[in-house]
Amino acid sequence: MEIIRSITELKQVISTIKNDQQTIGFVPTMGFLHEGHLALVEAARAETDQVILSIFVNPLQFGENEDFDQYPRNEANDLQLARKHGVDYVFIPEVNEMYPESIGVSMTVTQRIGVLCDRSRPGHFSGVLTVLTKLFHLVQSDFAYFGNKDAQQIAIVDLLITDLNFPIKLRMIPTVREDDGLAKSSRNVNLSDSERKEAPALYQALVHGKQVMIDGERSADKIEEEISRFLNERTSGKVDYVELLSFPNLEPIRATDHQVIIALAVQFKKARLIDNIIFNI
Amino acid sequence: MEIIRSITELKQVISTIKNDQQTIGFVPTMGFLHEGHLALVEAARAETDQVILSIFVNPLQFGENEDFDQYPRNEANDLQLARKHGVDYVFIPEVNEMYPESIGVSMTVTQRIGVLCDRSRPGHFSGVLTVLTKLFHLVQSDFAYFGNKDAQQIAIVDLLITDLNFPIKLRMIPTVREDDGLAKSSRNVNLSDSERKEAPALYQALVHGKQVMIDGERSADKIEEEISRFLNERTSGKVDYVELLSFPNLEPIRATDHQVIIALAVQFKKARLIDNIIFNI
Repeated sequence: MEIIRSITELKQVISTIKNDQQTIGFVPTMGFLHEGHLALVEAARAETDQVILSIFVNPLQFGENEDFDQYPRNEANDLQLARKHGVDYVFIPEVNEMYPESIGVSMTVTQRIGVLCDRSRPGHFSGVLTVLTKLFHLVQSDFAYFGNKDAQQIAIVDLLITDLNFPIKLRMIPTVREDDGLAKSSRNVNLSDSERKEAPALYQALVHGKQVMIDGERSADKIEEEISRFLNERTSGKVDYVELLSFPNLEPIRATDHQVIIALAVQFKKARLIDNIIFNI
Repeated sequence: MEIIRSITELKQVISTIKNDQQTIGFVPTMGFLHEGHLALVEAARAETDQVILSIFVNPLQFGENEDFDQYPRNEANDLQLARKHGVDYVFIPEVNEMYPESIGVSMTVTQRIGVLCDRSRPGHFSGVLTVLTKLFHLVQSDFAYFGNKDAQQIAIVDLLITDLNFPIKLRMIPTVREDDGLAKSSRNVNLSDSERKEAPALYQALVHGKQVMIDGERSADKIEEEISRFLNERTSGKVDYVELLSFPNLEPIRATDHQVIIALAVQFKKARLIDNIIFNI
């Protein structure tokens, strides 16, 4: 496994891979790797010749009062995990390598926002799309792998790729969970012991909400209220949102929709956790 | 020469070219080709294996009261000229092929604007960058060719490619002029006979301004005023702007700048003409 820290070096590697006409699978991450990321690596490993994983905590997607500084980092462990799981190249640039100067062109997203995480993280997804555009151009992969846990991110990356004709295929990989159902997340380490014990309620609430819908309830308001009630009874965290929407359009559900998402966010003391469930009705 | 109207067909062509490991030169245009465009084709022809020219009048870059409908079109003549000058593929999509639905992700440019054409065409350059991003992704060329006449466009495309790490090299090609100095432009056909006779004053004014600067004047205000006076004496058109700036940053000139641009725009009855001169001091 080769560790790449500069764009110049990355360009040379990509050029060689392209000349050899090999396919590239790209797994963009912010590091602090867990089984969720490794599931993406495995999916990439299974269908491409060269797997490139990036580790970059992107300042552009953090708001002023968010956890950019607190975001967990562990490079040595990340590299060990990546090596063990068959990653060919890790691209791990410093911030000034990705943003040597203030950026003069960026992405603006106007659809699939105004709901879910975008409500409490304005500008977050534009920051995500700007760094992904840079990374997609640098890596020139055939496939890019994202986890379903960040469902709004996936929906918006799908929009990015479709609307701007990126020559790249998006792969959506199911959320990996702990045995008790908690979605794997780098932010889970910031939960206190008692919060960690409550945290499985997030997924339980989603499963409960899905069942309420399958049992015939079609009012989004009522299903959302029921899930909020369920959460408030079981966690000390503050429910940030619970929303039932069409997927991937993230619009209010209509009778004609077949695929829906129930998504929620709960703010604990030092960690804001998100989870979702996507299913057909 | 192959004429391509659909994105599906274009993707197949690009895939074949890439598999053959041939280089691609891309000339994006809005059609109504003239010698300025053909100089771009010739530059592409000289250094790449396959030359792709696009013809697309992009609605996104026209303001509500601008000349999208009046913009001159002549497909048959364009195809004849392209064929004659050795273009391999012409990509000529309909609007709904490029924008099948309202676009949810677009480009925002925040540098190299607030001056020159951006003043009177707000949103124009974001529209240009959005369509170019789509075209760059579709064509996947090694080089893209732009004419110096649209100097602010070149400066902003340079920013797009640099800041977002497009794997593409920008080629800046000198402005092609009529014998009397008028810059070739698709919009010149919208000049009346008497306006056409006055129009060479634009380039004369630039040459005059450059000389004033070479003779020692360093006040941008004074040089701009002198050029405006020169224009007002010689044309019936309304001077939209005359500006002296650093190039390609398009900022007020400082003692440390080596490359500058003098650019101007004049609004005639049915045509707004632009021209510029870029030189070292």
